[in-house]
Amino acid sequence: MTSFPLSRRLASEALGTAFLVATVVGSGIMADRLTTDTALALLANTLATGAVLVVLITVLGPISGAHFNPVVSLVFALRRGLTLISTLAYIAAQILGGIAGTLLAHAMFELPLLQGSTTIRTGGAQWLAEVTATFGLIFVIFAGLRFRSEAVPWLVGLYITAAYWFTASTSFANPAVAIARSLTNTFAGIRPVDLPGFIVAEVLGALLALMLASWLLMEARNPQTLTETEPAA
Amino acid sequence: MTSFPLSRRLASEALGTAFLVATVVGSGIMADRLTTDTALALLANTLATGAVLVVLITVLGPISGAHFNPVVSLVFALRRGLTLISTLAYIAAQILGGIAGTLLAHAMFELPLLQGSTTIRTGGAQWLAEVTATFGLIFVIFAGLRFRSEAVPWLVGLYITAAYWFTASTSFANPAVAIARSLTNTFAGIRPVDLPGFIVAEVLGALLALMLASWLLMEARNPQTLTETEPAA
Amino acid sequence: MTSFPLSRRLASEALGTAFLVATVVGSGIMADRLTTDTALALLANTLATGAVLVVLITVLGPISGAHFNPVVSLVFALRRGLTLISTLAYIAAQILGGIAGTLLAHAMFELPLLQGSTTIRTGGAQWLAEVTATFGLIFVIFAGLRFRSEAVPWLVGLYITAAYWFTASTSFANPAVAIARSLTNTFAGIRPVDLPGFIVAEVLGALLALMLASWLLMEARNPQTLTETEPAA
Amino acid sequence: MTSFPLSRRLASEALGTAFLVATVVGSGIMADRLTTDTALALLANTLATGAVLVVLITVLGPISGAHFNPVVSLVFALRRGLTLISTLAYIAAQILGGIAGTLLAHAMFELPLLQGSTTIRTGGAQWLAEVTATFGLIFVIFAGLRFRSEAVPWLVGLYITAAYWFTASTSFANPAVAIARSLTNTFAGIRPVDLPGFIVAEVLGALLALMLASWLLMEARNPQTLTETEPAA
Repeated sequence: MTSFPLSRRLASEALGTAFLVATVVGSGIMADRLTTDTALALLANTLATGAVLVVLITVLGPISGAHFNPVVSLVFALRRGLTLISTLAYIAAQILGGIAGTLLAHAMFELPLLQGSTTIRTGGAQWLAEVTATFGLIFVIFAGLRFRSEAVPWLVGLYITAAYWFTASTSFANPAVAIARSLTNTFAGIRPVDLPGFIVAEVLGALLALMLASWLLMEARNPQTLTETEPAA
Repeated sequence: MTSFPLSRRLASEALGTAFLVATVVGSGIMADRLTTDTALALLANTLATGAVLVVLITVLGPISGAHFNPVVSLVFALRRGLTLISTLAYIAAQILGGIAGTLLAHAMFELPLLQGSTTIRTGGAQWLAEVTATFGLIFVIFAGLRFRSEAVPWLVGLYITAAYWFTASTSFANPAVAIARSLTNTFAGIRPVDLPGFIVAEVLGALLALMLASWLLMEARNPQTLTETEPAA
Repeated sequence: MTSFPLSRRLASEALGTAFLVATVVGSGIMADRLTTDTALALLANTLATGAVLVVLITVLGPISGAHFNPVVSLVFALRRGLTLISTLAYIAAQILGGIAGTLLAHAMFELPLLQGSTTIRTGGAQWLAEVTATFGLIFVIFAGLRFRSEAVPWLVGLYITAAYWFTASTSFANPAVAIARSLTNTFAGIRPVDLPGFIVAEVLGALLALMLASWLLMEARNPQTLTETEPAA
Repeated sequence: MTSFPLSRRLASEALGTAFLVATVVGSGIMADRLTTDTALALLANTLATGAVLVVLITVLGPISGAHFNPVVSLVFALRRGLTLISTLAYIAAQILGGIAGTLLAHAMFELPLLQGSTTIRTGGAQWLAEVTATFGLIFVIFAGLRFRSEAVPWLVGLYITAAYWFTASTSFANPAVAIARSLTNTFAGIRPVDLPGFIVAEVLGALLALMLASWLLMEARNPQTLTETEPAA
């Protein structure tokens, strides 16, 4: 953990998730108003989201770890010793922060504050996309922390930039953000009824990444093992 | 402060703000001429502005701190001891540099040098957007300087890249730039009569960020406090 | 080589090539569905591919070298002592991983898993483009490793970003990716019958780069030689 | 200078300028073929050019300094002691490399190899734009080398990204590239008869930047001077 007290760590998680969601939702609204080309709208949405992720993880990471995402907190709890209570508090802060982000975006764009999305995002293909998106995100975080921790903000921002396009679901990969996006009937929305499928898929993808990382990233046990495998190469 | 004499620090602030405004205004004119899609025009505007911010802050930061923004100078005066006279001189240099940037853009694009904008940007939602945009900018600068000062040029460039899209006002977040933009009746303009509302909102956002940063970024007072909070987690 | 056993190095190559191809193919499908403007589709395709390359090379490079490309493995075998068996195993892992990436993209976008592309990409100009694209890629990798190895992920991502646009073939530059792309009848496809021409061109470009690098990047032999050339300057 | 013999330094300048021009011209042709929206074409052109500049300066800078531009060689000759013969050889290599880049782009896109542009780019506003563009480029290079030399590839790539949009001339800022672009009647072209105006403007901008840099970037002469200026602040 960091050396900051829990109160500030939770404020950091809430603030970061709020800005992340305000960016996802707000840039979607802005883009949707300015163009009729959906690809162009998604491109603007992608650029804003990727950029803000690099910023938020850099400036808030030293305080709270900059999870902004319940499945990130979950896998860190499983692997790196975040306590159960801290984990639950982190997740609560992320969800509340995310909802505040949606409300802020609505207020800035003069939309009704409380909305429910009607955008259908469900079915096996969408869930596979969410498993894939979250698997990649969590693996990138673990491998980035292992090999080049100072680059993690860039890695996450760039990964999401790509994943907005290569996954059919535009890569939510984050239950707190998904919940917040269920409360906006704009470009970035998702029907509340579709949340459970997405969240299950995201947890599944995260656990698969954790399993793969446990094997692929583990330290070589001893030099002899290494020597034995080399001739095989 | 830096070790450069005030004369060169002021030249640096004027030069940087001039190039920043020339980029904001000039790229807006260029984009507006080349496309009828407003989202595409804003995308080009965003790309140019974000890129030039990284460059200008990197090359002029060592000379003057690369504020280019009266509210940045203001919060530095409040927190880091820029003297009153230096602060006023910085702000004057920024405003004059910004106006020069608008004139330069007009000259390059063969437009009348002196113009007044007729673009309406006012009302509570726009002001909320400016409070949000400036709050984020100032917080990112403080947190960036605290945790990873060499990354500040990138953080500011990427933050503004996102904020052009997630705030309804396209994130002016800078009174000197706002004044300069009131003098161009092109893509990036703002009516002179709408300036006071924007400037008040920007100062307010900056002060809120200063308050949050004072709490969220402060050093842990002593290890014992830290130990006490950990069990609470 | 790295200190990881061959089994994990092969898993890394397969995983990385799968994500690379899933990104190339998947972002092409997504973009093609959302817009009728082919340049915009290629722009989204470019952004996703460049971004994911930076990520994959950063997080998998320490494990397997992050070749993801048979011609990269080939030139490393020729220059840096990858054994013949390792090289062949790498290439097999890349081809299988690439095909898995195409299948994954099809599944996520609810398309028939098995397809054959009908997109014609052949002729002298296309082959020249592939020679050029691969020549540049391999030279950038060698020179990057020589002068600034920590920057190689960025260099490759940015090079491919440019090469998608400046080469008439959109820069496949990778036989494993080309094979995988022959199995999708979507935006990123290539007719299976056009593969041999592309692969020959890619190998040729790689060998040319190897030759140039051997001369241009070699160490100055001794200070005297250097002194002798300087007056000539 | 670097420790590489002149022959390889010249090869580096020719190779780099060739790839730079092939990117500028080739990406212009590609974009122009794929869309009818000129802003989108310029955006693709910008992205490719900015990206390739970062790559080329990083991998060839250690060999030849990565000027790729006669006015860069000129100001380095005036300030940093490149000999007259080396300077002339550099400029010749840049011009020949640039022309080769145009020919390569034409060959890859199946266009007649030898062409003359008919795109009119002349008049006071265009020349002012070129003075501005080159002034900024040279100042960024000098200030970047002074304060953060390892960032120069990024600074140049990002500066040109912005300058493509904020200058009315799309920022040629390079006589060798301008000559090469006069030989293509495609998106990036310039009429041969308009070359002299552009080249004079570029040299003028470079000399102005050299003058400003000599004052703004000079070392503080002695600590006493510094102490004297501080109270004035």
